[in-house]
Amino acid sequence: MKSQQLSIKSRIWICTEQGTFLGEGRITLLKEIEKHGSISKAAKAMKMSYKKAWKLVDSMNRQGDQTLVRRKTGGIGGGGSELSETGKKAIELFQEISSKNSTFLNSQIEKMEF
Amino acid sequence: MKSQQLSIKSRIWICTEQGTFLGEGRITLLKEIEKHGSISKAAKAMKMSYKKAWKLVDSMNRQGDQTLVRRKTGGIGGGGSELSETGKKAIELFQEISSKNSTFLNSQIEKMEF
Repeated sequence: MKSQQLSIKSRIWICTEQGTFLGEGRITLLKEIEKHGSISKAAKAMKMSYKKAWKLVDSMNRQGDQTLVRRKTGGIGGGGSELSETGKKAIELFQEISSKNSTFLNSQIEKMEF
Repeated sequence: MKSQQLSIKSRIWICTEQGTFLGEGRITLLKEIEKHGSISKAAKAMKMSYKKAWKLVDSMNRQGDQTLVRRKTGGIGGGGSELSETGKKAIELFQEISSKNSTFLNSQIEKMEF
């Protein structure tokens, strides 16, 4: 265990009493929905079934005080989905906490001695 | 997202250039080996095949500067395996870093506001 060669990886999950609320996969899904403006296109980009993507969105929407993903209204060719401010905030917050966590863990691993 | 209800879970993996060196499953395996004095009994306690347990031990031993698990020598009924000081240190270190990480993440989640 040559400490100079050690690195550390981590995953985090933000949970409510109902279970997982935000995790890496869910955040990627939110980002893809933001990018494509559609749950089905986001699912396709992630090689995930529409059913699974829809379930994840539904789970996040039910757990949030506000919905994270909402239906786009009207316009030519209307339909589609978009992120609410809460949805955008969720991405931001998750990334912030992940990044702080990496910094913290790297500082810990540097101190490790065997 | 009522912030008072949010909690955070995490998993960490300590890696070398060869891949995962220590993770939750590997640490549990080390603890079980320490408890049972045998890789096969540890595997059984974890409902893991002996082959898989052996591979994990071998992976840890190859990545450490020193072996983490070594064969017990002699004595009546000899054989069996035990942890080296490095193996014990690995458990201690992993638990310390996991615990510090939880404390850190909990302090972050408390500050979260939506």
